[in-house]
Amino acid sequence: MRIENPSPIHWQFSERARALQSSAIREILKVTMRPEIISFAGGLPSPETFPVERMRAAWDAVLTREGKVALQYGPSDGYAPLREWIAGQLSGPGVAILPEQVLMLSGSQQGLDLLGKVLVDEGSRVLVETPSYLGALQAFSVYRPEFASVPTDENGLLPSAIPALADNARLLYSLPNFQNPTGRSMTLERRVELVETCARIGLPLVEDDPYGALSYRKEPLPRMLSMNPGGVVYLGSFSKVLTPGIRLGYLVAPEPLVAKLEQAKQATDLHTSQVTQMVVHEVVKDGFLERHIPTIRELYAHQCQVMLDALAENFPQGVSWTRPDGGMIIWVTLPEHIDTMELLPLAVEQEQVAFVPGAPFYANEPARNTMRLSFVTVPPEKIREGVKRLADLIKARM
Amino acid sequence: MRIENPSPIHWQFSERARALQSSAIREILKVTMRPEIISFAGGLPSPETFPVERMRAAWDAVLTREGKVALQYGPSDGYAPLREWIAGQLSGPGVAILPEQVLMLSGSQQGLDLLGKVLVDEGSRVLVETPSYLGALQAFSVYRPEFASVPTDENGLLPSAIPALADNARLLYSLPNFQNPTGRSMTLERRVELVETCARIGLPLVEDDPYGALSYRKEPLPRMLSMNPGGVVYLGSFSKVLTPGIRLGYLVAPEPLVAKLEQAKQATDLHTSQVTQMVVHEVVKDGFLERHIPTIRELYAHQCQVMLDALAENFPQGVSWTRPDGGMIIWVTLPEHIDTMELLPLAVEQEQVAFVPGAPFYANEPARNTMRLSFVTVPPEKIREGVKRLADLIKARM
Repeated sequence: MRIENPSPIHWQFSERARALQSSAIREILKVTMRPEIISFAGGLPSPETFPVERMRAAWDAVLTREGKVALQYGPSDGYAPLREWIAGQLSGPGVAILPEQVLMLSGSQQGLDLLGKVLVDEGSRVLVETPSYLGALQAFSVYRPEFASVPTDENGLLPSAIPALADNARLLYSLPNFQNPTGRSMTLERRVELVETCARIGLPLVEDDPYGALSYRKEPLPRMLSMNPGGVVYLGSFSKVLTPGIRLGYLVAPEPLVAKLEQAKQATDLHTSQVTQMVVHEVVKDGFLERHIPTIRELYAHQCQVMLDALAENFPQGVSWTRPDGGMIIWVTLPEHIDTMELLPLAVEQEQVAFVPGAPFYANEPARNTMRLSFVTVPPEKIREGVKRLADLIKARM
Repeated sequence: MRIENPSPIHWQFSERARALQSSAIREILKVTMRPEIISFAGGLPSPETFPVERMRAAWDAVLTREGKVALQYGPSDGYAPLREWIAGQLSGPGVAILPEQVLMLSGSQQGLDLLGKVLVDEGSRVLVETPSYLGALQAFSVYRPEFASVPTDENGLLPSAIPALADNARLLYSLPNFQNPTGRSMTLERRVELVETCARIGLPLVEDDPYGALSYRKEPLPRMLSMNPGGVVYLGSFSKVLTPGIRLGYLVAPEPLVAKLEQAKQATDLHTSQVTQMVVHEVVKDGFLERHIPTIRELYAHQCQVMLDALAENFPQGVSWTRPDGGMIIWVTLPEHIDTMELLPLAVEQEQVAFVPGAPFYANEPARNTMRLSFVTVPPEKIREGVKRLADLIKARM
């Protein structure tokens, strides 16, 4: 039934698609799946923290009790009881988040795509941190903005630099807690200053917060959402506090933005898995996360300290790194003449250790002497061994 | 901690977002959830067909056996064993579909968004059937094409009309089996002619096939994919043969298109739920669908016949309708002076019966005297009663 001699198609990609590249991180991950490699390249949470049995029991309960509802099409904005639960978690003294402001997502990455779709025109400006989350740069880049990199210091974004960059800007994208890729956090003063600056110039502020709950030592700082709910879009995720493979996140936005985002969501994938939302509601509704999250914090805090100690012991003078108070990653800055993109193949082939080069995290001029190290999926003795191998390689290049 | 007197944000939506409207169907569905309404407006499959217990057992098995893998991040292209299974299903004598050509999706609607993203530039042309699936028009419209409506007759698309419309066209979107919204199918001759025409002029042909397995009386006709695998993008779904609430679909495309679509998928939502894919693989791997699908066909064929009989018995001269060989819907054409958009509020308020007006399914000039009726979620006695009420209303307007 095949037709004869069809002419081969010349696939003409859209202009936006020509800008798309496969993620450098994902390509590297493919290599570093080999078991002999000690990989600090992953951004994956530790599977030791997954509450598998509790999730299994929740699927069992939901399907036994409400199987036909769970498996039917659902509303585009999401499963109402879960939206209510989220709104309750984000509300507090002086801050009332309504369930109607919550849009459920197939992972918080989807929120970045929808925000790009709804707010970004070709050539309009998107402000990002220097450096910023690679997945956000990719999601926004499809909508062909001009990226403006806002300068940062050890306390995060410098708000005073924003007004000069905000001409025709549609949003500022920030990751205030244990930022990916730097592990850095914004101070409270800096947050207030950022929220005030954005409010003053009418610039929508996106607060991406996948790691906020993973604070090692103290209560997380207040959400910027709570400082100005009318001007902040908040992105949350169950990936780092529950499990990522279910693909469940959410965003909180003021009307009328959330209504427009819901329309875009509908056109994109109709709605997020109904059964997944019901299962997560079943898992979290009775305060499970309050008991569960401290166990994740404890594991990650320990492994972070092991890596910080190993770095101090092995890395030479002239190399510096961040000291995160939470989250999953450390950012290392080498002497300026070392390009970590060139270092990576040597690290993998000669030393069997992997990391993520820092350059792809920059929207504009990259600092090529940087790298991101994740410590959460590597056991302590391998963290020590991997850091030693990396140090040997770096010393040889200095 | 709230900042004082923030100026309210003026949300500036992107040009593409201003084109987005909430789906007319979804807005109507909200009204027709009231239990006293007999609704032919849904596009939902019947929950009676959901294999709830089998799905429950599959989740149990997957989480017990491989919980930590199922709940971890997975590859952007999808769960390899399920991609292999799908490739096997679509391969046959003379047609070898490779697993590498299969991209797993969060519902086949997502395939439409990704195809728009990757192939459509503003002002380029997208060819669609007259009328066409509303969700496809919405997904593509975000990328701002010029839609060209290809004329149709009772056997589907008229391929001879295509070349004159194909200037700067990026794809032709077709739904050959039990089309949404008409219930109509393309004949074998028409399919061959369509595939040959598209191949001759180098136009990518999208074959959307959510209903293909739901053929009442005979084996489904050959897939257009099998006639020219190098020029056809095939969209498949588990929504109509298993359950929709899990949001799982897939596309099959030739290299290099599938690689570009995978990059777009990665930027959009990283990947589709790993656990959902493993569960569906667990459910289908041993031939379950071969036993299950005939039970869906039998139910739908019966209810379709009940509606066809009721239409013949009650609807007046001057009204015509399609007689589907499968799927979930019937398309009704009223006398030209009756606008079904105006009829709908009367139907709901006076007669407590609902349908979907046909106009939103047209990319260009709508035929306002059309309506879509779904019969799959309404029990036979209510189908008869609802058709009678609709007939009374139509007669009163004639």
